[in-house]
Amino acid sequence: MDDKVLSAIKRRTEKEPYAQKLGMNLILLEPGHAIVEMTPSEGLENIFGMAHGGAIFSLIDEAFQVSCNAHGTVAVALNMTVTYHLPPDKKSTLRAESKEIHRSRKTGTYEIKVTDDKDRLIASCMALAYRKSERLPFLDED
Amino acid sequence: MDDKVLSAIKRRTEKEPYAQKLGMNLILLEPGHAIVEMTPSEGLENIFGMAHGGAIFSLIDEAFQVSCNAHGTVAVALNMTVTYHLPPDKKSTLRAESKEIHRSRKTGTYEIKVTDDKDRLIASCMALAYRKSERLPFLDED
Amino acid sequence: MDDKVLSAIKRRTEKEPYAQKLGMNLILLEPGHAIVEMTPSEGLENIFGMAHGGAIFSLIDEAFQVSCNAHGTVAVALNMTVTYHLPPDKKSTLRAESKEIHRSRKTGTYEIKVTDDKDRLIASCMALAYRKSERLPFLDED
Amino acid sequence: MDDKVLSAIKRRTEKEPYAQKLGMNLILLEPGHAIVEMTPSEGLENIFGMAHGGAIFSLIDEAFQVSCNAHGTVAVALNMTVTYHLPPDKKSTLRAESKEIHRSRKTGTYEIKVTDDKDRLIASCMALAYRKSERLPFLDED
Repeated sequence: MDDKVLSAIKRRTEKEPYAQKLGMNLILLEPGHAIVEMTPSEGLENIFGMAHGGAIFSLIDEAFQVSCNAHGTVAVALNMTVTYHLPPDKKSTLRAESKEIHRSRKTGTYEIKVTDDKDRLIASCMALAYRKSERLPFLDED
Repeated sequence: MDDKVLSAIKRRTEKEPYAQKLGMNLILLEPGHAIVEMTPSEGLENIFGMAHGGAIFSLIDEAFQVSCNAHGTVAVALNMTVTYHLPPDKKSTLRAESKEIHRSRKTGTYEIKVTDDKDRLIASCMALAYRKSERLPFLDED
Repeated sequence: MDDKVLSAIKRRTEKEPYAQKLGMNLILLEPGHAIVEMTPSEGLENIFGMAHGGAIFSLIDEAFQVSCNAHGTVAVALNMTVTYHLPPDKKSTLRAESKEIHRSRKTGTYEIKVTDDKDRLIASCMALAYRKSERLPFLDED
Repeated sequence: MDDKVLSAIKRRTEKEPYAQKLGMNLILLEPGHAIVEMTPSEGLENIFGMAHGGAIFSLIDEAFQVSCNAHGTVAVALNMTVTYHLPPDKKSTLRAESKEIHRSRKTGTYEIKVTDDKDRLIASCMALAYRKSERLPFLDED
């Protein structure tokens, strides 16, 4: 069952419009655990010419989303808190790792860390998901 | 002075790569107050075909960024907490309004609300900025 | 029904051990809305001789707790984010007001503001409650 | 120098009015790292007869406070986000451990976990401190 869920999420993520738009790639996926990378690309700069906080957060959210849905039932974001530590270098690939720190029947809590290619901590997040009882709707697609 | 700051931020935001990429437009700007809209477009969907949480957050962050920099000195995001209330309709324009609720010499605190075109509350955010003493670097560009 | 709920919560809050310990009094209660005050007293100081952040948060939490339970069914805190703006004067009564900004069948979101006796903003909070379907267990006590 | 700072904070914490009021004891202290325990006592119950969220948060805040001040200069709380996982048993001692995950000249970020006497995770917090340049004011007291 697990393998089927993980394969379905991976396929779905490869085709995800938002992931493609921002250059995000799923590197690792297990139930409650995921790593996603964002390669440097045009169009992520804010008014200061730095990586936009929304782009960094999107990477966090992508890792969170796949990690909490990897249990096979639909999970949706309720609350996310991000602290920004350092502005990343524009040429650095960024990596977000999401780890589940608690899970009950109805909720899951995750810590997500973003690091750059020198392994410096760029941002940290704590995120809370609401876990529905329904199966992922795309499990039987191919 | 205020007018010069607001004009400079508006010009800069119109050319901001990330705002262009996600279809975000600055609608109103005053010191500590901003409204930004995101028009529906291709490429914002997550693995469920809904608006990606990262896209909604990016809209929040854009409104926050311009509102806290509109005092004329550089302000950077320290911490942001978002609660997601409702998934928006894919065809709806989304609007984020950022309001300053407190400001000291070193920090500013903002509440940002996202609503859809039926004025339903989609997401709420509290955000904390660190205020540097340096002027905005692009004030003298044209 | 509402009146019965509000009366039961008020009675219960007057006898609440933690409210008594910290000197907290319920001033106003409506569904989704509450004001609680904390009078200055001995024993709230931290290592700097200022009001402990935990005491200020406790006041926030008390207002949040009664406001989200005032719909008559049990609501429990999932997530709370507090930003501290100003250290309060030790002799000031502090007042927390909790307002519901969104409510669905399963969750409620609240903004809570703490002010001092000069109406200065001391702290701000956004809080998320999980709403159970069960009635408050003490509704039929007297 | 470190030893002097740690000793001064320990002495000060033993006499802290709020720590005494809630039954909190400092168990371990290092720069950026602290463990504080709260023993079960009367007066911590909320309107449901469970441990008040404000009491659990106070334990978190106490561990955070001493860990971020243990570098020897004054640090104050800017923002704290707590997620509550499980209501603790009333008879359980609670333990909060604060770990620094990032520190710059002006800010520090901490993760604080609360566990009960069965080592179950009760609550998790991410906290942000503003670091002043001034030395702790009580370093030279005895």
